[in-house]
Amino acid sequence: MDYRLYYSPGAASMAVHWMLIEMGIPFDAQLVDIDAGNQRNPDYLRLNPSGRVPTLVVDGTPRHESAALLMLLAERHPEAALAPAPGSADRAAWLERMIYLANTLLPAMRDWFYADVDGEPAGAEAVQALARRRIEEACDQLNADLADGRDYLVGGKLSTVDFLAVVVMRWTRNMPRPALGWPHLARYIRGLRALPSFIELNAREGLTEWRNQDD
Amino acid sequence: MDYRLYYSPGAASMAVHWMLIEMGIPFDAQLVDIDAGNQRNPDYLRLNPSGRVPTLVVDGTPRHESAALLMLLAERHPEAALAPAPGSADRAAWLERMIYLANTLLPAMRDWFYADVDGEPAGAEAVQALARRRIEEACDQLNADLADGRDYLVGGKLSTVDFLAVVVMRWTRNMPRPALGWPHLARYIRGLRALPSFIELNAREGLTEWRNQDD
Ligand SMILES: N[C@@H](CCC(=O)N[C@@H](CS)C(=O)NCC(=O)O)C(=O)O
Ligand SMILES: N[C@@H](CCC(=O)N[C@@H](CS)C(=O)NCC(=O)O)C(=O)O
Repeated sequence: MDYRLYYSPGAASMAVHWMLIEMGIPFDAQLVDIDAGNQRNPDYLRLNPSGRVPTLVVDGTPRHESAALLMLLAERHPEAALAPAPGSADRAAWLERMIYLANTLLPAMRDWFYADVDGEPAGAEAVQALARRRIEEACDQLNADLADGRDYLVGGKLSTVDFLAVVVMRWTRNMPRPALGWPHLARYIRGLRALPSFIELNAREGLTEWRNQDD
Repeated sequence: MDYRLYYSPGAASMAVHWMLIEMGIPFDAQLVDIDAGNQRNPDYLRLNPSGRVPTLVVDGTPRHESAALLMLLAERHPEAALAPAPGSADRAAWLERMIYLANTLLPAMRDWFYADVDGEPAGAEAVQALARRRIEEACDQLNADLADGRDYLVGGKLSTVDFLAVVVMRWTRNMPRPALGWPHLARYIRGLRALPSFIELNAREGLTEWRNQDD
């Protein structure tokens, strides 16, 4: 198994980067600085014609979509047990939560951060208002799921759902209502940020915000 | 295996309904008329607190998110071969395409049809303008994928990706640029609409638009 991850610090790639570190398998990491616009370099566009991160080159073939990459890695590395096994009781809940994050939170976040780039700048405020509403509704929902005191979203143990959820929650840190303002979400986030793999991830991506020691 | 599908004619539930018919397995179908607002009946909200269709009750437990339900059914019925098997060469492409449809086309469609309900009516026009742009970009993308003459999006055979893609393409029929206006997409759509399971699906849902004989 041969993996090369193209990532930008703190971007959607962070969930995949986290999973690779947590699994403890060898991989190669390549920085694509999206603030510098390097996702639009011709070499990178050959790997990812949409000019987004992450790209994960798997055994020589470039693959995209962070949620799909997490699911693919879980399937290729069943020994890491980062998803309920097919046929197990928690499998349906895991699939539902992965898709929910992928089609509710991720697109709303895209709208929040890219409304003026993806669409007309004049319409950006309206797009962001709806995005904000959806993100806060999703935080309400996740907070309710966590109200029973659970440490992980699905199946009583760490899974790909947590990597994706926490990375997305990190993006709320400068929004009007950061995720840490929801009590159960805050407890959940702090628990996951304490994982050695998350600490290592921040070090490797050079991130010095939104770690447990930062707030 | 015991399945009960809650569906509304032509809604996101249609992809799951199609798959159940194509697989030829027994299931129970319950109509939820969303035009009449029945998705907000207390009985239905107990099954699906977000008041959306589909809900698929699987062995007594209600499950949601059409893309997740398609993936779950594919996994529970490997003999139907409606997804590349785990570990097979086409698996990564299948996961990527399922997630792409779930986090690009489905949310843009939600924006197109529900901008004024999900958000402020005053902002609906801006939200819909961005949604339209994204939907047309996705049609460009799918049309390009199909330009090699393939009949199915992934792996050279029918899969869950096709159920989801065709149902979403159906929703473009009254948009400014219907999907049938893209040549490769049109050929692809007509091929899938010719399947006996699609014809049966339309009959069961009482739909008399956007069948091969209608245009
Ligand atoms: N659906 C994609 C979204 C990826 C995405 O939007 N990434 C952002 C960073 S979080 C990006 O690459 N932005 C650069 C750009 O759009 O120019 C995924 O989940 O992988
Ligand atoms: N992400 C959900 C979306 C479902 C959805 O938005 N369904 C629409 C019909 S296509 C619905 O139930 N609308 C009724 C409403 O929102 O009141 C899925 O794919 O299952």
